[in-house]
Parts: sequence; C-alpha cells; structure tokens
Amino acid sequence: MHIVITGAAGFLGQRLVDRLVSARELAGQTLSRLTLIDQVEPNRPVSGGITVHSQALDISQPGALDEVLAERPDVIYHLAAIVSSAAEEDLDLGMRVNFDVTRALVEGCRRHGLSGTRLVMASSVAAYGGNLPEILDDMTALHPQNSYGAQKAMSELLINDYSRRGLVDGLVLRLPTIVIRPGRPNAAASSFASSILREPLNGEDAVCPVDTSLNLFVMSPATVVDALVHGANVSGDVLGPFRAFMLPGITVSVAEMIETLREVGGESALAHVRYEPDGKIEAIVGSWPSSFTNLRANKLGFRSERDFRDIVKAFLDERA
Amino acid sequence: MHIVITGAAGFLGQRLVDRLVSARELAGQTLSRLTLIDQVEPNRPVSGGITVHSQALDISQPGALDEVLAERPDVIYHLAAIVSSAAEEDLDLGMRVNFDVTRALVEGCRRHGLSGTRLVMASSVAAYGGNLPEILDDMTALHPQNSYGAQKAMSELLINDYSRRGLVDGLVLRLPTIVIRPGRPNAAASSFASSILREPLNGEDAVCPVDTSLNLFVMSPATVVDALVHGANVSGDVLGPFRAFMLPGITVSVAEMIETLREVGGESALAHVRYEPDGKIEAIVGSWPSSFTNLRANKLGFRSERDFRDIVKAFLDERA
Repeated sequence: MHIVITGAAGFLGQRLVDRLVSARELAGQTLSRLTLIDQVEPNRPVSGGITVHSQALDISQPGALDEVLAERPDVIYHLAAIVSSAAEEDLDLGMRVNFDVTRALVEGCRRHGLSGTRLVMASSVAAYGGNLPEILDDMTALHPQNSYGAQKAMSELLINDYSRRGLVDGLVLRLPTIVIRPGRPNAAASSFASSILREPLNGEDAVCPVDTSLNLFVMSPATVVDALVHGANVSGDVLGPFRAFMLPGITVSVAEMIETLREVGGESALAHVRYEPDGKIEAIVGSWPSSFTNLRANKLGFRSERDFRDIVKAFLDERA
Repeated sequence: MHIVITGAAGFLGQRLVDRLVSARELAGQTLSRLTLIDQVEPNRPVSGGITVHSQALDISQPGALDEVLAERPDVIYHLAAIVSSAAEEDLDLGMRVNFDVTRALVEGCRRHGLSGTRLVMASSVAAYGGNLPEILDDMTALHPQNSYGAQKAMSELLINDYSRRGLVDGLVLRLPTIVIRPGRPNAAASSFASSILREPLNGEDAVCPVDTSLNLFVMSPATVVDALVHGANVSGDVLGPFRAFMLPGITVSVAEMIETLREVGGESALAHVRYEPDGKIEAIVGSWPSSFTNLRANKLGFRSERDFRDIVKAFLDERA
C-alpha cells in the first residue's frame, strides 16, 4: 500500500506518519510506500522496509501533484491547509491552498483514473456558523463565518461530487478544535485553546483572549490520528449520500479547561494565564458550535475522548 | 441605476428585462442603464430613455466581465448557468460556467471596489439532497446529489464569504422548479414538469418520465421575477449570517399537476401525456425536496403562489 500525505511536516501529519510507520499497515494492507509532502521537506521517519519519499513541494503550483498521482497511491491524506486566522488575513492565499489545491487533487485523481483511491481531507468545526441550533446534527447547514471555513465547505462539496461521480473515493472529516497541540502558538484562531494549558504546564505565561464562558468542541491529537487512520477503513459503500461529517469531540468551556489546569498543574500553573480579550479571535471562535449529536461518525466507528482530564493527562504523559 | 444581467437571453432573463424596462425603476431608483449579456446577443427591449447595451459574450473566458464591472453597475443579476442534466453530462463545462464564472464575478467586484453592488445569483432546489428531513428549514444542509447543485452550493458559499468580507453585497435565491416554462423541453432534469402541462395545453404530446407520486416544489415564472426584483430591495443589513435561502414555492405532486391539466384542458389534453419512466431523470429530480418552512424568505418579504391552479391559469392568460 502506497500512502501520500500532504502537510506531512505539520503537527498532525508528523503524528500520522509516526503512527502509520509503527503500525506498518493501513486498512488491513501492508504499508510499502509513504510519500510525504509539505512546503518544507518533512522529517523522514525510521522505517525499515517501507520506502519513504519526502519532498518539499508547493502543491498550489499547477501540476505540482501530477508526478505523485501518476504513481497511483492507494490512500491520500490531504492535511495541508492555511489555518483560520491566516486565511482570514489573506483571502487569495486561503483560496489557493484551501480550495484550489483540493480541486487540483480531485481533478488529478480523475485524470489518472484513481477512482478507488481513498482521499481523506481534514475539514473543521470552523465550517459551521450563523444561526445554529443548540445541538447540531449531520443535516445542519454549513454557514461559515470565516474564509477558512468557507473554503473547507466548498472543498467538501467538491470531494463529495467527485466521489458521487466515481472519480475518487473521498472522505472528509470535520475536526473539532485540537487540544493540546504541542509547540508554540500559531495563526489558528483556536491556538489559545492549547496555549492556555500547554504554556502554564510548562511554567510559561499564556494569554486567554476569550470569555471563560465560551464552550469549545475539542479532541486530542491522538484521537484525531485514530480518526484519520480509521478513515481509511470505512468503505465508500457505507458513507451514504454525503462524504463529510463532524467527528465526535467533547464539549468543554474555557472555565472548565482552566479548572482542569488547576487540578493538574496547581495554583502556580493558573497564575500563568493572563486574560486579554481579543474581539477578532472571539468573533471567529465564538461562531463555532460546541455541541453535536455525531450520529453518523459514531455509527461509522469513530470514537471520542471520555473526558477533558484524560486529554490533559495524555499531554503530560507524552511530555514525560 | 445601472443593472447588468447575465443569461439575459434566457427565459427568466428576458422576463426580468421586460419587467425592469416597464417598471423603469428598481429599489426606488430610476433605471438609466441596462447591460444585457448572454452567449447569443440578447433581444434589445423597446426602452425609451433607458440606455441598453446588449452583447454576446462568453463570460467563462478570463477577464470577460472586466469591461462591464469597470462601469460600476449598481445591481448584477447573475442568471447564466448550465442546467442540471447538462452539467451532469459535462462536469468541466458545469464547473466552468456554474462555479468559475461566479468566482470571476465576485473577484471582479472585489478588484473594482464594488462593495455596494448588489449581486443576485439564482441557485436552485437542486442544491439539496441526501437524507433530508420531511420538511426543510433554513438550517438544512446542502448535500447535493448532482453536479449542478454542487456547483451552485459552492457558489453560494463564495458569494456569502465575499459579502461577509464586504467585497460585494451578495444575495442568492434558491429557486423552486419553475412551472410552466415557455418554449420547448431543455436539458434541465425538471424540464418535464413544464412539458407535461405546456405541450398538452398546446395540443401536443408530452412525456412524463417520473412516477406521478413524485412531489415537486414549484413557482411560476412571474413569481420568480417578482423575487428577483424584490431581491434588489432587501438591505444587506437584514440578510444575517448567510446570504442564500430557499424561495417559498408550493408543494405539488405530479398526479395533482395532471389532475389540474384535466380540469383546465379537459380529457383531450390528458390524452397527450405519455408515461415513459427515465431512471436518470427520476434519480436527479427525486433527490430534490418538496416541502420547506421558508421562514427567512417569508420574513424578508418574498411571496409564494396561492395554489397550482393559479399557475396554470396564468400560463393560459399569458398565451392568450
């Protein structure tokens, strides 16, 4: 089995690579080949027996993906994206990377006859917005209130239509806010959600730019990687008339996150959190919903965390 | 006021032109200029005092719309489209006309600084599909089961995002199935819905390709034109977080349509209808919903027919 990953140098991409290389298989088939693509050359994992190609490639250039698609990969994980705040700052960049690249991918699959190739794209809770019901279900409309969400929603429609026409075998997983991301704050509007836990647990200061009553819908990095892996197992036959749905996160308020920080890290950790409201971030993140029925995802075997404490503990265990 | 209409040679476009020219105003402002665009040069209406430019233009060519956008129109009606069966037959053509042209329009408005220009696009009931509830509301997801619907749904997201960013003042009206269209059958999957009434009332044969139990959501041509005109009146301020919604049609079964044909045209009209099931058409039209709450449209002042008999009578009156 040959797997391609775009955005393979990103934090999710790296974790997915590690998981695949250690499992040495996907969807019951032996992993023979891995093609890792990103703007910078992705780290090459230790991978005895698996042929790994790692390349720096600007996939927003016309034809950039032709060579790799000509090799007829079995699974493509399309994780490359311009995150929410950055796409809001630069509409052209967001359209090019978040939408045009998706189009180039499905068009490439069509041209190379890759009707059986499973294309897994990461979409986001950020695609929801507007006058939402209290609890969202699988038929709740996407009325995104940010360009990143709009570009992802357009990409979902494209992947669904090309899949319906039998030109590719697509699947789009809408990711909850991922907590706790490793590393440093980034240009995602939801960056603070990791930062207010990660930095204090590391003895550093962090800024909370939103009201603590704000609810988030979250999932840990490990569980997101579980979902990406499981996404290759789910047969196109059972996906039904729409190839995109929300993954089952858990609902947690910023106040509960801070309380968990206190429980786990003590008062000293708490003292590292500064509150500096940022209207721009609050407007974006505040438009994202935080409660879902997740019937489709559950039925298809995607799983959620048990509680928020587990997420924080997993972060500490991993760091240890 | 300068109004641009794409698809102005089409049947809706022609009716809209006639209506605007006879009203001599739109949204309380005097109509001074009309630019009519289509693949073939649109008919030039008799229009004392209104400057009319009519031109044959392939708007899918790069930069095709630059000249007209440079004239800073106040309202753009974007009616040009590849209809459902044709877009299903030719994916590239549909993507180019139904999506890329919309993108060129909003990009052109952005480039020319037309943030106050009201862009009214016609979308369609065909954008709905999948596992729909019995009665749809304004938050029901678009899970289109045909490429035309997917391209329209993507265009809606684009217009909404560009409007949210203040780059254009967009509005998308999802049209019910229009009955009774004049002229001849066309490549729209719903073409039969007009044909089974129009042809028999004209003493000609027509083919019904679907089961008579099928429900449709319909609106007359005159009421669609009312909605397009009203679309220029509705302020962007009251449109809320999503610029697209379904217009209020009426729900009618094919059997009821045929019964109305009998009432109005007699048994002789009825004898002109042949039943020849067409799985392709049934699959497309059968995936479209037929019952909506239409709360947003009603609140914004869009109106529906009273009953199906009125629609048939209006057709006969117009023909007389």
